[in-house]
Amino acid sequence: MLDVFLLGTAGTVPLPNRWLTSCLLRYQGSSILIDCGEGTQIALNSQKLSFKQIDTILLTHYHTDHTGGLPGLLLSMAKAERQEPITIIGPKGIEEILKGVQLLARYIPFPIQYIELQESTQTILHGDLEITAFEVNHRVTTYGYRFDIKRNRKFIKEKAEALEIPIKYWSLLQKGEEITYNGKIIYPDDVLGQERKGIRFVYVTDTRPTQSILDNAKDADLLIAEGMYGDKEKQENAIEHKHMMMQESAQIAKDANVKELWYTHYSSAMVNPKEYEESLKEIFENIVISKDGEHTTLCFSDEEEKDV
Amino acid sequence: MLDVFLLGTAGTVPLPNRWLTSCLLRYQGSSILIDCGEGTQIALNSQKLSFKQIDTILLTHYHTDHTGGLPGLLLSMAKAERQEPITIIGPKGIEEILKGVQLLARYIPFPIQYIELQESTQTILHGDLEITAFEVNHRVTTYGYRFDIKRNRKFIKEKAEALEIPIKYWSLLQKGEEITYNGKIIYPDDVLGQERKGIRFVYVTDTRPTQSILDNAKDADLLIAEGMYGDKEKQENAIEHKHMMMQESAQIAKDANVKELWYTHYSSAMVNPKEYEESLKEIFENIVISKDGEHTTLCFSDEEEKDV
Repeated sequence: MLDVFLLGTAGTVPLPNRWLTSCLLRYQGSSILIDCGEGTQIALNSQKLSFKQIDTILLTHYHTDHTGGLPGLLLSMAKAERQEPITIIGPKGIEEILKGVQLLARYIPFPIQYIELQESTQTILHGDLEITAFEVNHRVTTYGYRFDIKRNRKFIKEKAEALEIPIKYWSLLQKGEEITYNGKIIYPDDVLGQERKGIRFVYVTDTRPTQSILDNAKDADLLIAEGMYGDKEKQENAIEHKHMMMQESAQIAKDANVKELWYTHYSSAMVNPKEYEESLKEIFENIVISKDGEHTTLCFSDEEEKDV
Repeated sequence: MLDVFLLGTAGTVPLPNRWLTSCLLRYQGSSILIDCGEGTQIALNSQKLSFKQIDTILLTHYHTDHTGGLPGLLLSMAKAERQEPITIIGPKGIEEILKGVQLLARYIPFPIQYIELQESTQTILHGDLEITAFEVNHRVTTYGYRFDIKRNRKFIKEKAEALEIPIKYWSLLQKGEEITYNGKIIYPDDVLGQERKGIRFVYVTDTRPTQSILDNAKDADLLIAEGMYGDKEKQENAIEHKHMMMQESAQIAKDANVKELWYTHYSSAMVNPKEYEESLKEIFENIVISKDGEHTTLCFSDEEEKDV
């Protein structure tokens, strides 16, 4: 299960009722924050979410509306007597950003580790969660993030029993290892069912449409993508400032066959993003014109089928 | 006239309904911001106040709850196509802070000027407004700020007419200059009334009580001071972390003979600062347990008496 909380939906400028775009993921007791604009710690607090479990912060890029909340958040973590390290991951230039953060935050008693993304596609393992950073196309180097939770193939107990395999070997077989028992090699294929779909979540903002988004969003359970502009007359702005139109995100969602698309990162000039809902549904039906606080839990499609 | 807007009243940690302590002053078409914690630009926006007229930012000290909003505010100013310089004034170490701000804000197209306070008491002129920074006693170098608008002595027209002084000399005399007319020296005292009280506003937070606060707050029209703790059991915390108890601020207000005291910078653990109101009034009657958005306009006491 992966919990997804969209903390804010504002692009560029925070508004009284619209926090800057950021997203909190919870998985197996730890939390990952994506982007941290000014006010993110207040958005967390508003939604009764704790920053204590955050062990990783992913930054899409270094525009201030995605980084300005870092000094305050780290300071609040320090006030809460945090001692555990935090890992911050982002594009090239992260040392400069962290230097800026530390000049403002000043008294951070816990270690700040960082990973500077070097490749156009780069995978980082976070326990069972596979995080793939993929480069997109903004005015500065910017990444989208894909999150995959792989699912083991189902272990077919009846097959194992028919082969008289002792229970102690079952978990090895489910992990895909072959075993030798009674002088006979048993292969995972002998006891496992078909490949099963895992969970895929993709987060992308501040970019023009790219092939990399399409590829990474393929069959995702949820895509959160920017809806900077809805008015078609803003198409030139979108191209000039390298943002996505709501229509472009909807087209990607359709082409990538995602289950659901949530919008975020609305221009401050867009007072009511819902006004575009009907016309966007003509491109792709399963859209949510998200507000701050939108949240869901992504599960395996048949969560009740237990593994060994 | 001096407009005073208390933008936020939170100490240390911003809360969903309590912005970090900062204050906007408006005087003769320009605005001065005191402190700029995370979210200050949103607090301004919430109160329909513009950041466009801000030409000076005064920082009391460099704890993040007083500086963390600078990158976002400066970026929003840049997005609004600001070209005019801004002046930032604060204690020693300001270069490091501005370096941090610029590493995070990155693309600021207008000049950022700064004044580093060197003396324990230092006066800066802002047009007719005299700003006096005075050192207080916190864990890091911290200043309070006093604002004085001097008032000219009343010009007594009847005396000038009796002395047959032509009108063209009147304003010189009111400014305190002597003139020579018809071979005779006319002194300001010949035509001016008594000294008149100007406007005094004092802002002080993050400090233990000091003689400097008492001296500077003397006869102020308004003192805004911290009320970090109200519960008397927190006295040791106040001493250890170098903050003021609400009772200590009230005693200063009384001893300094201020007209009114507003509280701010409440601890996040203090859910309802109003619970201390009655007992504080036993120390000093004219208190306001401010909420975010408290505002007033300070005027000369007899504003209707016009100068020349």
